[in-house]
Amino acid sequence: DFTTKEQIIIGVVGGDGIGPFITAEAQRVLEFLLADDVKTGRIVFKIIDGLTIENRAACGKAIPDEVLAELKTCDVILKGPTTTPREGDPWPNIESANVAMRRELDLFANVRPVSVPEKNIDWTFYRENTEGAYAVGSKGIHVNDDLAIDFTVTTQEGSERIIKAAFDFAEKSGKNKVTVVTKANVIKTTDGKFLDTAKAIAKNYPTVEMDDWYIDIMTAKLVDEKRRSQFKVMVLPNLYGDILTDEAAEFQGGVGTAGSANIGKQYAMFEAIHGSAPRMVEEGRGQYADPCSIIRAAGMLLVHIGYNEKAEQLQKALDICGLYEKKLVLTGRETGATGSEYADYVMETLSNP
Amino acid sequence: DFTTKEQIIIGVVGGDGIGPFITAEAQRVLEFLLADDVKTGRIVFKIIDGLTIENRAACGKAIPDEVLAELKTCDVILKGPTTTPREGDPWPNIESANVAMRRELDLFANVRPVSVPEKNIDWTFYRENTEGAYAVGSKGIHVNDDLAIDFTVTTQEGSERIIKAAFDFAEKSGKNKVTVVTKANVIKTTDGKFLDTAKAIAKNYPTVEMDDWYIDIMTAKLVDEKRRSQFKVMVLPNLYGDILTDEAAEFQGGVGTAGSANIGKQYAMFEAIHGSAPRMVEEGRGQYADPCSIIRAAGMLLVHIGYNEKAEQLQKALDICGLYEKKLVLTGRETGATGSEYADYVMETLSNP
Ligand SMILES: CC(C)[C@H](C(=O)O)[C@@H](O)C(=O)O
Ligand SMILES: CC(C)[C@H](C(=O)O)[C@@H](O)C(=O)O
Repeated sequence: DFTTKEQIIIGVVGGDGIGPFITAEAQRVLEFLLADDVKTGRIVFKIIDGLTIENRAACGKAIPDEVLAELKTCDVILKGPTTTPREGDPWPNIESANVAMRRELDLFANVRPVSVPEKNIDWTFYRENTEGAYAVGSKGIHVNDDLAIDFTVTTQEGSERIIKAAFDFAEKSGKNKVTVVTKANVIKTTDGKFLDTAKAIAKNYPTVEMDDWYIDIMTAKLVDEKRRSQFKVMVLPNLYGDILTDEAAEFQGGVGTAGSANIGKQYAMFEAIHGSAPRMVEEGRGQYADPCSIIRAAGMLLVHIGYNEKAEQLQKALDICGLYEKKLVLTGRETGATGSEYADYVMETLSNP
Repeated sequence: DFTTKEQIIIGVVGGDGIGPFITAEAQRVLEFLLADDVKTGRIVFKIIDGLTIENRAACGKAIPDEVLAELKTCDVILKGPTTTPREGDPWPNIESANVAMRRELDLFANVRPVSVPEKNIDWTFYRENTEGAYAVGSKGIHVNDDLAIDFTVTTQEGSERIIKAAFDFAEKSGKNKVTVVTKANVIKTTDGKFLDTAKAIAKNYPTVEMDDWYIDIMTAKLVDEKRRSQFKVMVLPNLYGDILTDEAAEFQGGVGTAGSANIGKQYAMFEAIHGSAPRMVEEGRGQYADPCSIIRAAGMLLVHIGYNEKAEQLQKALDICGLYEKKLVLTGRETGATGSEYADYVMETLSNP
């Protein structure tokens, strides 16, 4: 419980590409909101700048050891996007830093809210964040040149804790409905286990309704304007959560608008769900990167450490400021506003609500 | 090549639930269109009615042996939906008949077109249909009560043949663009193989442009009204193809409107992409089931066996008749038109174009 904690250390990880630009803006907004407690030393920001693709490539690890050690000294982490090496890139084929951090810090619950009031959309996704198709995603086997094998791993405990988190939230928030999304008609062993576990857990929540759908038809249901508002809280194995949350975010304005909380028993990390857009930085346009997603992530961080009122103020200010694209229209500039100007706009709005 | 064949045997598999109702309507439409060649005996319909969930449960096999033998005597198959047993059903937990048939008849290419002219959508999906997460989907391992494992299997040949099919189509149709969809940033071994294979094959098609996206962001891109018309031909491993085609079909009017071709070297099977809706039949409403999807599948069957002109006539008639839902509006009936009435309407339109 953070409310009784004397000091809260917020680690700030810039990451790659546009990451350092937008993360700095989110940090400015947090410092503004938490100014009093920063002064007393209750809130401490700790910049962790070693999580770059260059460093990771040099040591051949998704997270360099000293970065991991630093991360573990923080209570919560605000993280910019990191570059995942792809074939053809100048980097060795190391694992995604996101995936590694979720595993190393055991951040089992990836919580992604998507809300579009005018479309009657109010969804909260609970994505399992440490296993499934991601468990050993970078350790498949090339049996020979002709045959490649990957593994999906689902454990009882891993399923239980994410499903319980979703049901707890459904109960406490009064949403009272959980939709379980799998492909248990085909991926019978692992997804079957996930679905069976959900059915068993549902019995302990008499006030929460549960239904279940397969991931294929679920992607269609989110498009269906007449029926999609029936969904409230969704819980999904890792890969389906990855897929469905990107689609869902699009209705809100794109992955650039959605924040993501990665929560474990001991640590929690908050991030933008978009990529690091290295080309923007190469072309010298890093300062124009849209900081909306990471500022929303910062809002989720505030709730997590017990500053609910500040989080609400921020949410209201963001609603007033609207999407970054709208700000571009407001300023009427062809090149767009900078991320700094957008953050200034948010802070001005916070000062004069 | 079917054009030189003396006789073509079309197997008609009713399947479960609403399957026999809608399949019979599609057969009527085919018989109407092919009447001359049915008379001469060039076209022969062969009813295969043993692929029911009851029979499959009785022998504990996804496809009873005698049904499989019958299927193998046909040149092409028109198939209604089959029920995939789920937990809580009265049936043992046998594999999906669809998945088994695709594997047993080696129907490696699942081709799913989605076209919505007024939305500028004209997509053709090439879904790998025999391997990936589906290869041994029903043969994962419960290591113990706590740990379940599933496997994804991707072969060189399996990847090559579907990717080539997509590029061949892109070239011949003049669409000249193929988008490869994987999650190779995380599922590195199998999806990495698929993506690498695509990059190698692309070199042999100098007039066809290739790009690639990850499945998560791809589900968002299909929603984006401004940019989605950039996609033409997409090629995907099995599971992503399953997911993305359901989403795509929704823009056309739902999975109930989309047909699907399952094509191999020796056999080919054409089916509706929706389910068997057993509840409709239990409630005595089987005759109201929408036959659009399977009639579209029948249209794809016509192209496959070389009756391109007939297929075009059918497509035009379907465009005129519109979706089944619209027919309900036309007839002004609350209970809706029956599937038979819709098929009659299609045939009347064919007679008076
Ligand atoms: C960058 C990538 C590894 C990551 C994932 O697949 O989880 C991203 O898509 C996300 O959703 O956070
Ligand atoms: C019924 C099911 C097994 C099948 C699949 O997953 O392939 C269906 O969703 C499809 O797309 O044809």
